Amino acid sequence: MRAARLHEYTHDMSDGLSIDEVDKPQVSGSSDVIVEVEGAGWCQTDNHIIEGMWEEYVPQPLPMTLGHENAGTVLEVGEEVELVSEGDQVICHPVQSCGTCRPCRQGETMYCENDAFNGLTTDGGFADELHTSERSVIPLPDGIDPTTIAPHADAGITAYHAVKKAEDGLNPGDTAVVIGVGGLGHIGLQCLESMSAADIVAVDLKESARDLASDLGAHYTLDPESDDVASEIEDITDGVGAARVLDFVGADETTQLAPDICAAGGDHHIIGYGGHIHEPAQALVNGEFSFVGNIVGRYAELQELVALVERGEVTLHTSRYDLEDVNEVAQKLENREIDGRAVITP
Amino acid sequence: MRAARLHEYTHDMSDGLSIDEVDKPQVSGSSDVIVEVEGAGWCQTDNHIIEGMWEEYVPQPLPMTLGHENAGTVLEVGEEVELVSEGDQVICHPVQSCGTCRPCRQGETMYCENDAFNGLTTDGGFADELHTSERSVIPLPDGIDPTTIAPHADAGITAYHAVKKAEDGLNPGDTAVVIGVGGLGHIGLQCLESMSAADIVAVDLKESARDLASDLGAHYTLDPESDDVASEIEDITDGVGAARVLDFVGADETTQLAPDICAAGGDHHIIGYGGHIHEPAQALVNGEFSFVGNIVGRYAELQELVALVERGEVTLHTSRYDLEDVNEVAQKLENREIDGRAVITP
Amino acid sequence: MRAARLHEYTHDMSDGLSIDEVDKPQVSGSSDVIVEVEGAGWCQTDNHIIEGMWEEYVPQPLPMTLGHENAGTVLEVGEEVELVSEGDQVICHPVQSCGTCRPCRQGETMYCENDAFNGLTTDGGFADELHTSERSVIPLPDGIDPTTIAPHADAGITAYHAVKKAEDGLNPGDTAVVIGVGGLGHIGLQCLESMSAADIVAVDLKESARDLASDLGAHYTLDPESDDVASEIEDITDGVGAARVLDFVGADETTQLAPDICAAGGDHHIIGYGGHIHEPAQALVNGEFSFVGNIVGRYAELQELVALVERGEVTLHTSRYDLEDVNEVAQKLENREIDGRAVITP
Amino acid sequence: MRAARLHEYTHDMSDGLSIDEVDKPQVSGSSDVIVEVEGAGWCQTDNHIIEGMWEEYVPQPLPMTLGHENAGTVLEVGEEVELVSEGDQVICHPVQSCGTCRPCRQGETMYCENDAFNGLTTDGGFADELHTSERSVIPLPDGIDPTTIAPHADAGITAYHAVKKAEDGLNPGDTAVVIGVGGLGHIGLQCLESMSAADIVAVDLKESARDLASDLGAHYTLDPESDDVASEIEDITDGVGAARVLDFVGADETTQLAPDICAAGGDHHIIGYGGHIHEPAQALVNGEFSFVGNIVGRYAELQELVALVERGEVTLHTSRYDLEDVNEVAQKLENREIDGRAVITP
Repeated sequence: MRAARLHEYTHDMSDGLSIDEVDKPQVSGSSDVIVEVEGAGWCQTDNHIIEGMWEEYVPQPLPMTLGHENAGTVLEVGEEVELVSEGDQVICHPVQSCGTCRPCRQGETMYCENDAFNGLTTDGGFADELHTSERSVIPLPDGIDPTTIAPHADAGITAYHAVKKAEDGLNPGDTAVVIGVGGLGHIGLQCLESMSAADIVAVDLKESARDLASDLGAHYTLDPESDDVASEIEDITDGVGAARVLDFVGADETTQLAPDICAAGGDHHIIGYGGHIHEPAQALVNGEFSFVGNIVGRYAELQELVALVERGEVTLHTSRYDLEDVNEVAQKLENREIDGRAVITP
Repeated sequence: MRAARLHEYTHDMSDGLSIDEVDKPQVSGSSDVIVEVEGAGWCQTDNHIIEGMWEEYVPQPLPMTLGHENAGTVLEVGEEVELVSEGDQVICHPVQSCGTCRPCRQGETMYCENDAFNGLTTDGGFADELHTSERSVIPLPDGIDPTTIAPHADAGITAYHAVKKAEDGLNPGDTAVVIGVGGLGHIGLQCLESMSAADIVAVDLKESARDLASDLGAHYTLDPESDDVASEIEDITDGVGAARVLDFVGADETTQLAPDICAAGGDHHIIGYGGHIHEPAQALVNGEFSFVGNIVGRYAELQELVALVERGEVTLHTSRYDLEDVNEVAQKLENREIDGRAVITP
Repeated sequence: MRAARLHEYTHDMSDGLSIDEVDKPQVSGSSDVIVEVEGAGWCQTDNHIIEGMWEEYVPQPLPMTLGHENAGTVLEVGEEVELVSEGDQVICHPVQSCGTCRPCRQGETMYCENDAFNGLTTDGGFADELHTSERSVIPLPDGIDPTTIAPHADAGITAYHAVKKAEDGLNPGDTAVVIGVGGLGHIGLQCLESMSAADIVAVDLKESARDLASDLGAHYTLDPESDDVASEIEDITDGVGAARVLDFVGADETTQLAPDICAAGGDHHIIGYGGHIHEPAQALVNGEFSFVGNIVGRYAELQELVALVERGEVTLHTSRYDLEDVNEVAQKLENREIDGRAVITP
Repeated sequence: MRAARLHEYTHDMSDGLSIDEVDKPQVSGSSDVIVEVEGAGWCQTDNHIIEGMWEEYVPQPLPMTLGHENAGTVLEVGEEVELVSEGDQVICHPVQSCGTCRPCRQGETMYCENDAFNGLTTDGGFADELHTSERSVIPLPDGIDPTTIAPHADAGITAYHAVKKAEDGLNPGDTAVVIGVGGLGHIGLQCLESMSAADIVAVDLKESARDLASDLGAHYTLDPESDDVASEIEDITDGVGAARVLDFVGADETTQLAPDICAAGGDHHIIGYGGHIHEPAQALVNGEFSFVGNIVGRYAELQELVALVERGEVTLHTSRYDLEDVNEVAQKLENREIDGRAVITP
């Protein structure tokens, strides 16, 4: 079968992956599931992986097929699989958790001590077929198209996970700030609107992103180039500050807003990355705010997000590309030419 | 009356405060309380205030009497005060909260929008008498000596507050790391031991501090000069990392331990300050840990700490000094020559 | 001034209160606030008070002016009041909390150890003027009419308070059941819709109430006379049961639904009252569900509800009556002839 | 092999179970684990099962081997088991959860939709060997004897689970009441002492139980025959009431204490059963307390309890009996002649 694979790290996005002919994945364990991939979302993290930015954090055996946002149809299952059977349409959480380590027992499947992560530490879904497990697949409700929902397998649950943490303790009348209304941010904003009654302030450099934010329920939008973000948020909140900040950018410029825009006791959620946090410890003491790290959401959170999608609370703008076009997609994303989310349809 | 006052910021601790003769405080509002000071703890923050380190964070009208850890006997009360009366022994929360802003309504008295903070934004307790309010005093149980308990009014509740946040979700078998077993740290360690069943690892440069930690219940002690803290904690926790880190130092060297010692989903609590946090956003994403800011504890938390003290769960080593000796105390603290907590007894 | 007062308990609603001429309230304490009443909601609890149903729970000095859902314009304030001044429009939380007991310090103003409760333990708002305090008034945002918002001072925050407790841990895809879509229930349903993404099942005997529920966002409605509520909820939830039940009725028939409709780990919130809970302890063990009591919401929760009202998330159907008509209102409510909420406009 | 089996429900404890010769359990699934039973605790619930008290709640195929508190040595494992191997000593959580239903994904293994429960819905451990799964076994730390720890597999985690829920939000200075210091209660009391700094009041009819409570850390003990429990708790708590009640009895007489002894906002945890809850809904509204159901603890909680046992925080008094003596044990328990916990050693 065909698979878009990374052979060595490079900063040249025009030639990051090569389309190889590889063996089809086989069922070997009792819980294995083989999925025919119908949609595989392309993520900013794919570019980061190609650049080698994850090499120091996780083991990456190259060559490796990328693609961690997958959905499709079950082709074959191991002999003890009960959750799905051949022909079922599924979305695939990227992590194959073991189910028996302590984090798995606690439901913290992202902290699994024996996990494999499609497209990050093991082969992913930019291919005709994907090898995954019963612990990673979620049957799709009727009427949900695998290709359309695929990006929720990572972009979606990352945004949802952060919002779920952020909305805990977020009261009506409190203010939440969404920084970056791109692939993840526009999902996060919809989750926030659906799950809380907070006032939402969206911050983005692009006018089209701010317009989208308004359409999706933001009560205020700010342009960091022309607006003084800190002073605007002080006005909007009567000097109280934002109870929650969801930073989908994670650049130096956005993390350094924290002491000026977080309310006392507030959280600045780090979801996007690329830049640094650099603050005096005293700032966190004086303002009692926190920098809260956020990883991809758990399996159970993907179930919850599928429920939101089924109810029409969260919609996703996607554009489709052939498997052969992966490097073109990588380049377009680098140039900020992708609107919404690119989905590879092998 | 006598008062030890700061006239201008200086780095010369030998001459930071001067003993002035000033007017006695008067009851003017219906909730006012005047306290004869019997003990006023000297805090590292007093040195920081003298150096001007808080000038950019809070308003400080100079000259100002320092001293924010006060306890003593009620001399006079406003006409609507019901909580205490003349002759009652009290510990004084340093913040006089308004009681009517939204944070006060929520019990978040440290976020009061109209507060005064003894010894930080208004006159404090290095004086014969202190002006405070019914909203700040807590009657002492029988048998608790004001001079001995005074430092709990800031050092104590700061440590307690952080521990109370940290112990939420801390399970038996989880590991908590206490960095810095000094004035605050040795209180925090006792609170942690009393309120949780976590394994406690104490980290300190001084052997005497590590010995104290062991006596107070630490299960492991580490010397950062001779031990590889990250690798030791990895061993102690079977590779899981620490669920909670209580950083009572807040130096560059201690905050940078976070990505290496925090468990997935863990919190690195910032209590001490002086250094910076400097981390790539990606580290917080990959490890899903947080830097959690911690300010002084709330009024209700001081009540809880008094309950712990009354039960003998938390003890405090104090040494007593006359009001005239304030600058000597400041110098000794600078030179790390104070064991336990210095208390001024005006 | 005129005041509708209860002189003795009675089951005859046609003659429950008498319109007396009484002295106007006076400012005596430094935090007192006198309000000209513009709207005072009539509540089912008023009928219960007239019947003597609260006599065993709280002290009730008769004669007493009823009316605990009040809003109007500030006429006069004590000398230390800063939150409001003459001419401000306010909604009045029924509880005048002391601000200095431990529950008040924690923000739990409903547990105040020294409280007065308008219309329940002290004179209320079925009168030209109301005596209250700075601790009980919330300034209204521009454009909010006191008469319209008045019922939120009790009906509103009781419903809001229960929903706020219930929505904590309520995930997208979970099911919440609202039993009774009357005065409180229809507010609760709107709060739930605004603050969570749960599937909502509304249960009511009246077709008009079920229709209202659908209009306000319920995803399913059930008629307990023709539907088998437990079996319908089992179907709706795929056998899981409801994560949260909000029982605004509190009759024997509704509390006994709990073991059959609550999901494992679920909560059956008791808000309405009149009937009993009668269950074997074993049922709670086997199903691990809880019966959760709910009192009136806190001051800070009324602030949050005002924010929801200002944003248009919660609307209230009210009908207006003169002060002279109080007994007619009591009778109509007894006969279930009041649609929405009756508001007395003195 | 030998197995003590229930053939039909009876109230005659002298003849409840018969010792049958049955086939040894076999490994059939890839996650199966066969354990040689070294200790199997006898529980009050075993008597209840013999009486048929669980028939209406769960499916019980008779004849069935009882015994749900098991520990021993692994004899054989399925081919995909990685957690344990032959010869390992383990404690066995009684529930074999599926690992793939939504509750399992959330860590709520007690709510598993496809579970089997040893000795309740499938064969248990009053036998030479036990059939269980990788999802149910926890390797024992060195030095922990399987026979001694066995009762923690149900009695222990039931008590621990309730305490873990109860200690959340339990502050120093708050009061917790433990009703019934028997098999579960004396474990719960030790967990509470270890995990919180609350004041503990133990209530028991037996003097020996009250003495044990004092030894284990209770600050007050009450005899419900000679003490007025409600009035004593009012005195102890200065009129506030108990923030948490842990009712290990669950009789009519104990549940009806709730409105009189619970603090506002407090929880009355139902752990023991046999009696009923019978309260007016109004009592829960007025006092805002809750009746909180408690089932057996989760797998992860058994891990935490093993950690407490390893640290010496929780000790258990056990007496040992041969498999042939099961009916004698049942009778003794009925007559309250068992001190501590009886453990069957097949």
